[in-house]
Amino acid sequence: MSRKKMDLNCDMGESFGNYKMGNDEEIMRYISSANVACGFHAGDPMVMAHTVKLAKKNGVAVGAHPGFPDLLGFGRRKMEIAPEEARNYILYQVGALKAFVEREGMELQHVWLHGALSSVAAKNEAIARAVIEAIKEIHPELIFVHRPGLASYEIAKALGMNVAVSVGVDLEYGPDGMAVLQRKKRYTDPKEAAKKAIRIAKEGKITATTGEDIEMRAHTILVHGDTPNAVEILREIREEFEKENILVAPLREIL
Amino acid sequence: MSRKKMDLNCDMGESFGNYKMGNDEEIMRYISSANVACGFHAGDPMVMAHTVKLAKKNGVAVGAHPGFPDLLGFGRRKMEIAPEEARNYILYQVGALKAFVEREGMELQHVWLHGALSSVAAKNEAIARAVIEAIKEIHPELIFVHRPGLASYEIAKALGMNVAVSVGVDLEYGPDGMAVLQRKKRYTDPKEAAKKAIRIAKEGKITATTGEDIEMRAHTILVHGDTPNAVEILREIREEFEKENILVAPLREIL
Amino acid sequence: MSRKKMDLNCDMGESFGNYKMGNDEEIMRYISSANVACGFHAGDPMVMAHTVKLAKKNGVAVGAHPGFPDLLGFGRRKMEIAPEEARNYILYQVGALKAFVEREGMELQHVWLHGALSSVAAKNEAIARAVIEAIKEIHPELIFVHRPGLASYEIAKALGMNVAVSVGVDLEYGPDGMAVLQRKKRYTDPKEAAKKAIRIAKEGKITATTGEDIEMRAHTILVHGDTPNAVEILREIREEFEKENILVAPLREIL
Amino acid sequence: MSRKKMDLNCDMGESFGNYKMGNDEEIMRYISSANVACGFHAGDPMVMAHTVKLAKKNGVAVGAHPGFPDLLGFGRRKMEIAPEEARNYILYQVGALKAFVEREGMELQHVWLHGALSSVAAKNEAIARAVIEAIKEIHPELIFVHRPGLASYEIAKALGMNVAVSVGVDLEYGPDGMAVLQRKKRYTDPKEAAKKAIRIAKEGKITATTGEDIEMRAHTILVHGDTPNAVEILREIREEFEKENILVAPLREIL
Repeated sequence: MSRKKMDLNCDMGESFGNYKMGNDEEIMRYISSANVACGFHAGDPMVMAHTVKLAKKNGVAVGAHPGFPDLLGFGRRKMEIAPEEARNYILYQVGALKAFVEREGMELQHVWLHGALSSVAAKNEAIARAVIEAIKEIHPELIFVHRPGLASYEIAKALGMNVAVSVGVDLEYGPDGMAVLQRKKRYTDPKEAAKKAIRIAKEGKITATTGEDIEMRAHTILVHGDTPNAVEILREIREEFEKENILVAPLREIL
Repeated sequence: MSRKKMDLNCDMGESFGNYKMGNDEEIMRYISSANVACGFHAGDPMVMAHTVKLAKKNGVAVGAHPGFPDLLGFGRRKMEIAPEEARNYILYQVGALKAFVEREGMELQHVWLHGALSSVAAKNEAIARAVIEAIKEIHPELIFVHRPGLASYEIAKALGMNVAVSVGVDLEYGPDGMAVLQRKKRYTDPKEAAKKAIRIAKEGKITATTGEDIEMRAHTILVHGDTPNAVEILREIREEFEKENILVAPLREIL
Repeated sequence: MSRKKMDLNCDMGESFGNYKMGNDEEIMRYISSANVACGFHAGDPMVMAHTVKLAKKNGVAVGAHPGFPDLLGFGRRKMEIAPEEARNYILYQVGALKAFVEREGMELQHVWLHGALSSVAAKNEAIARAVIEAIKEIHPELIFVHRPGLASYEIAKALGMNVAVSVGVDLEYGPDGMAVLQRKKRYTDPKEAAKKAIRIAKEGKITATTGEDIEMRAHTILVHGDTPNAVEILREIREEFEKENILVAPLREIL
Repeated sequence: MSRKKMDLNCDMGESFGNYKMGNDEEIMRYISSANVACGFHAGDPMVMAHTVKLAKKNGVAVGAHPGFPDLLGFGRRKMEIAPEEARNYILYQVGALKAFVEREGMELQHVWLHGALSSVAAKNEAIARAVIEAIKEIHPELIFVHRPGLASYEIAKALGMNVAVSVGVDLEYGPDGMAVLQRKKRYTDPKEAAKKAIRIAKEGKITATTGEDIEMRAHTILVHGDTPNAVEILREIREEFEKENILVAPLREIL
């Protein structure tokens, strides 16, 4: 019987200029896929270069994490952009990151939309379609990572993309499988998070906020970098996965 | 005996958002290589997408025209950046443009530094080296276009880059082969410009401001988009080249 | 019997860096109030300094025209900002422009929200309230200029602001008094525009798109700078106002 | 005999959007003058509003800390701008901050140039003159704060500005009275810093790097916010000043 595999992902490279954000050096030791900001909502060329090198050093696969052109709002404010704008913002950002990835002899693995761009694409089909077509144009084998149950997820599948489902073990989920979003991330019990992660990996199930079990067939587990004890949670998941014989591997080895 | 060939180039895609700059639609009909702005000193993802499509439609080869991150100063103000910053600004901008070029089924042909970044690289060896290494990392066959006689030109050759020399027929040159830069471009007599262009193509010579003839072995002739009668000059050069049996061809067919 | 007075206004100072927009030099000769961009959606410190000097030279009163922090979208894309963000964006932009106005020995006359910020404030009461409170905090006598019939207009009046109504003679109005917005401004017949302007000034009425007459008590008449023949329209209005003995005067002499 | 007075100042409000920088809440308790970033090299309208309120709550006088339009480089990279650009960048930034200060019922106290703009003005007379004239235009009583011995300092005095000298007790000074600048601030012994501060306050002297005593008649003592133990140093200075009967007071009560 084959060994269970699971990817662990986190947003990385969100610093900008003299502004530091997140504990990338530490977190990169525990994850297998990094979602790297591309200079619109966060990140800059120096940060991108550094983050990609850090990923390489830790054997972590790199994906793009493009967002709205709104550094001031960290890409978390909805902007009413046209589908063509969405398409070209994706091409620009993912293209820029790809240059940093390829000069390290690596291949870009995935794309995950950031913040409000993700929320808009989840509901607006024209935006979702433009975004996904842009990703396909960059490379048809790129993996589109998404939370489950959204329009952009369905469109990506319909357009023949490789789609991966990500579940946050520092989030709670309603009975419809939708995450209950928090404005500010809270401390999460590492043991509980690790238990959730194991159950997702082994059974494809989680317990919803209502107490009932729901199906959650995820390819990757997300720990948010701004969850105060993110490093601790990741370390615990790693240890418990080891005991349970679950292999941590990047998305491209799982899909 | 083989037919003479010459490339004609111009800066393109310098509009931004609702701001229009230059007469790209018209100029693109006469040139063979376009230097496309990459969103730092000018251009944006929408403009880049449009400009690359326009180049394709007109059979024009596309190069990147990266600059300082200074839209407010149009990349014409020197900034004291570190070599590592220069390197990563190049990777970012050229990488972004490459995505737009490749999705059209084209290949990026060349890189030409814009404005003050070009001036800084021309004198600062560490910056020049970082920039040229970055270009090589993106693709070793990319052509580095430059004015003659500068440090960055010598370094590019020493590092084994394909280097092309560009001469502006709407500029004047001193006896040392250095252009006499003008803050504001003036009307240039199209007939004179065409004569200059033909002499460069056939003899590899120009007349310096002092009246003496100097050697000027150029691969490409530049007409500045902000020279008021740029279109007229380009049309005249095209017509005269036709009569003289000089073929207009993109750089990659000349080097 | 007192002579009729009417203000003529136009958006000014929308250039940015090397990008030119609008024909400010010409238009400034015909208007009495200028709505000056403040560096967020358009304009920059050099442009603001120049525009305010130009207004002074032409005896034109200056108002602020603040917008969303979205130069790329020219402030025409809705952004989901919080009321506190709206408040502080107004304070910042209007405060900045005020410095340029006061060093010329002038006083800031009015504030008119630009583009999508105006649209958002027109419907979102919390944003409207924050914006209007910010304007009052800068100076309680500042005039708030607005199209008729909107939430922000009502709130401004409720908060005791001086409110002026602006009507565009290059726009059409529905029977509810709401403008029929056009994405791209069209040529407007100068004679028709002047007739409209005179009727607004003398009778406070316009003919709606349905053919019926509606009340339109305006304090100022707007000609959009991007209407192709804006200068011609303004010149015609000036000439016809002269014949009809209608005095062109800035808002502060009208309210 | 009158009691000795000394101002304590620190750069404040350097956060941007979701990016936090510095420990403003803590430091504001110990200083008497705050140099508040104005949105070009750091700070944004939300941060400015918050920082000014925090200053008011702590009875701290507010000054403007304008810089180059280079958020990416935190205003620490020299840019080759024209004097007119410098003048208008000052008007814009100081004008914007003034709006936040005045709505709190406070008056702007001083202006201190940030980073590379300060370095450029220190050597380039035309820039220095433009900057100082701009400050005077905003308000002739504004205090221009500067390190000693620089061109901009002399020009400010020649133009009749109120000029205050600031000395950093977490820096070392050469025998010419010029600070030995460090790229990265180091831990500074609080007791040593307090001793230095007392000697400056009482004797107007410091010991230079060469061991000799030099004159240093300062009006304000700077502790850099990025010195790792800035809060501890400020607390120690406060305690020692108390013992020595030196009153901490804002610049406007000292000059």
